[in-house]
Parts: sequence; structure tokens; C-alpha cells
Amino acid sequence: MKERPIGVFDSGVGGLTVVHALREACPHESIVYFGDTGRYPYGVRSKRVIVEFSRQLALFLEREQCKFLIIACNTASALAIDETRQTVDVEVIGVIEPGALGAVQATRNNHIGVIGTEATINSSSYVSAIHALKPDAQVTALACPLFVALAEEGYSGKEATRLVAEEYLAPLRDAGVDTLVLGCTHYPLLKSDIAEVMGPNVTLIDSATEVARVVGDRLRLRNHHSETHETTSYRYFVSDTPEKFARVGKRFLGHDVAPVTLIDLEDLHHLHDTTISKQ
Amino acid sequence: MKERPIGVFDSGVGGLTVVHALREACPHESIVYFGDTGRYPYGVRSKRVIVEFSRQLALFLEREQCKFLIIACNTASALAIDETRQTVDVEVIGVIEPGALGAVQATRNNHIGVIGTEATINSSSYVSAIHALKPDAQVTALACPLFVALAEEGYSGKEATRLVAEEYLAPLRDAGVDTLVLGCTHYPLLKSDIAEVMGPNVTLIDSATEVARVVGDRLRLRNHHSETHETTSYRYFVSDTPEKFARVGKRFLGHDVAPVTLIDLEDLHHLHDTTISKQ
Repeated sequence: MKERPIGVFDSGVGGLTVVHALREACPHESIVYFGDTGRYPYGVRSKRVIVEFSRQLALFLEREQCKFLIIACNTASALAIDETRQTVDVEVIGVIEPGALGAVQATRNNHIGVIGTEATINSSSYVSAIHALKPDAQVTALACPLFVALAEEGYSGKEATRLVAEEYLAPLRDAGVDTLVLGCTHYPLLKSDIAEVMGPNVTLIDSATEVARVVGDRLRLRNHHSETHETTSYRYFVSDTPEKFARVGKRFLGHDVAPVTLIDLEDLHHLHDTTISKQ
Repeated sequence: MKERPIGVFDSGVGGLTVVHALREACPHESIVYFGDTGRYPYGVRSKRVIVEFSRQLALFLEREQCKFLIIACNTASALAIDETRQTVDVEVIGVIEPGALGAVQATRNNHIGVIGTEATINSSSYVSAIHALKPDAQVTALACPLFVALAEEGYSGKEATRLVAEEYLAPLRDAGVDTLVLGCTHYPLLKSDIAEVMGPNVTLIDSATEVARVVGDRLRLRNHHSETHETTSYRYFVSDTPEKFARVGKRFLGHDVAPVTLIDLEDLHHLHDTTISKQ
């Protein structure tokens, strides 16, 4: 068990921020990553579709012998974690609870802001997770749909991004939050733009770092952590555009992204059909 | 044959600009529309995946008894028209040739600009289509990836959009094109922003209007055009988020979008499997 890989899945390239944090927090662990580049982004879709896609990716990673699954995508964590847990036998964690925990530990004035995709914010998952830990916390949540496109286009530091950030974030700044959860894997790429608008007194919480810490703790607790560097490996699977994934992914991972293997979407559908019909 | 509907498919909501133009140009025709909202956008995907999705949608519309198919999505028109034609028995037209024709007829200085998604521009389809009509035309083509997100977020007229447009379009303006093809269904929503940057001497070509004209002509030529208003109907199918499609779609269509029916992605895959295995 100890030397089996950790599985990480995401709607695309953004979840590589989780892989980056995981490599720092758990350098002995092998990682298998699936980026659903053939169907991203998830943040604009319904729960129904996000559940369907998430179950397929979880089944794929379970077949790859993963000992633990991380849903790196905030949207899938927010909308599909229960259904994903019901689909596979292996333990599954999302980024919402770790992000909420980080925010609750950081806040001093008890007022936390959350930004994310439309689907994540509409699900109220962060609000529920924060209230489960701290029922009296005040939470203000806002969708920032343009941030994903701006991050992917490398628009950090540009005036257009500052204007969009100003428009989106002004209500959060004016509300007086002292902690802001970056509830989408893409947002850390716009961290400096967001920090500029929010000001120096607001702590930004990156769910990627938080989930990596929780996973490391949990593997040691279960005595499932890898103890050797010798078998450590990293493998990446995508459902489209492997070259672009490797190129853009380098910005998120901070390392070369290799090897990348392309998986046909038809195969994901069939994997799902086969498993469901067996149940 | 005459009273059978025209089928229109698109990656999502943008193709409703084609439905709008078609309702103006051919008011007697019934229309069945499929918006692949469960898997949009197409402009960031590979030819392989775009072909797979386009074939599924074409098969769906053929099963709906359509007499003629329009690929409203520029990206699918650019990358999947041949494969779509091979998949169905009914006549298929895309938006590239009509857009190219409109541009060739409009240019005076023989220098045409084209903007579109990454996939459309990388395919060089517009350049080829323009050269097929006018081999000596000079064509400058550029991808404008952020325009789709800005159009969907209703960012027309905002300063952030002007800054992005200025950055994207400056090379085209400086190159001296006198005609610019808006090679993505979303771009007409940013027409005023684009016109402001390009200046009053540049003619903007909207492929939606061009394709509607061509389809009207072609149906009359084949004697397949509807001659009565009595059976005219409009039906909309989507692969996700029907309410959002109706809400956002109203901006593109200029009318209420109804009735909208949700189709499961699994059904599209099965439709494809069944048809392929029959071949």
C-alpha cells in the first residue's frame, strides 16, 4: 500500500498547483494526475455533469492503483465529492475542507471572504465548510468568472486584470474581510493582482497548500505514507491537447510536466458504463 | 422535405446569432438547434475531440429529420466539416466559406484580417477559404482567446475590454486591413469595442449573417425551402444548464429561447457508438 501513488484529478491544468504543493509536502510520494482538458472548464457546468465527469476520473485513478484520491478542482470538490466517494473504494479528499480550515485558522476578525467559479459559489460549499468549523464566522462569497481566462492567458500584472479584479473584489474589500480563500486552482496565478486590490492586511488562503498538508498528515496517521525515494514517480494523463497541457502546466507546476499520456473520452465513458453495470 | 427543419449546432450559446440571422433571412423555416453546453468551449480543444463532438451533434440533428445542417461554431466549421459531412447523409454547411465570401466581397485594398479562437486560427481555414476565392488577397489572422469570456460576462463597453481589444487588435490595425472577419460567434457581442479600436474605415464581417444568406439561397436553389408559416417551429437542445442557456441565449438571439430540452452526454456517446458500429 505504502508505495502506491496518490491520485489527483482536476478539470484541466490548474490542479497542478496541488501537485506542486504535494511534491513539497510529501516528497516521497508518487503521483498520478488526470487533467480533463477535453471537457474543462467545470466551473460553468451543472452538478449533474460535474458528478458524471468526476466519477469517470475517479474510476480511472482507482484502476491506476492509487491509494488515496485528491479532487484538486474546487468546483468538483464542491459539487461531486459525495458521489465520487460512493463510486470508488479508496479514500477521497477535496480542497474545500482544507481551504476552510486554513481560513478559520487565519482569520482574526472572524470575517472570511471566498472567491471561486460560478458553480463553486452557487453550491455554498465553502460557506458550509467554514460554518461547520466555526459557526459564528461571517462569510462573504463571490464568483469571479473572468479570473480563469485571465490566469490562463498569462494576464497577471496587466491593467485589464487590475480593472476586473477591482470590480469583482471591491465588495469583499469594502465588507472588511481579513482573510480571502482563493477557491479556484487558477486564482493563485493572479495572487499579486488580488493582493494589490485587497490590501496588505488581508491573508490569502491557497487551498492547494492546505490540502497537501492535510493529505501528508492523513497518510502518516493511516501508516500509508511512502518511506522511500526509490520508487517515486510522476505520471500525467489528459483527455486532450497533451502538448499544450505540458507547456501551460509548467507555469502551474514549476517543473517539467512529463510523461503526459492522452486518454480518449470514449474510454472514460466506457469505463464508467462498465463499472456502473457491474454494480 | 420542404417542411423539415434546418439543424444548427454549436459548442454552446453563441450559435444563436446564426439562428437570429436565419430567422430574419428565412422566416418560414423551422429550426432545431443543439448547443453543447456540457462541453463548451471548443476553441481550446484539439481537432480530434472537436471532430468527435461534432459528429455526435450532427447525428443527433439528422435523427431529428433535419433537411440541412449548419455548423454555427467557427471552430467546428474550421476543424470538423469534412468529417461531419462524412458522418451524415444530409447537406452540411459551415460558417467559414460564407464568412470568407463576405470578406472578399467587402475588401477594397485586398488586405483582410481574421480573428477567432486559438483552434480556428491555428487551422488556417479562413486563410485557405479566402485564398480559394481570391488567391492574391493578403490575410492576417490572429487568435483573441479572452474575447469569448469577456462577451459571455457581458463586458462590452468596459475599459478592461477596450484594453484587451487594443492589445489584441493593434497589429491588425497597424497592418492596414480594411476588412475584419469576426471569426467566432461570440465576437459580434463585442462589435462596438472592436470597431472602436479598428476605426471607422474597417468593415466588420459577421459570419452569422453571411451563412444565413447562403443557406436561404441554397434551399431555394434545391427547391427545399419552406413555403408556409403554418408549420414553423423553433426547438433548442443542450447538453447542460438549460436555464442558463435560455437566460444568456436571449442576448444572442434577441428573442425568448424556448422550448429548451436537456440531452444527456451519455446518450450522445451512445448515439455515436451505435451509428459507427452499424457502418
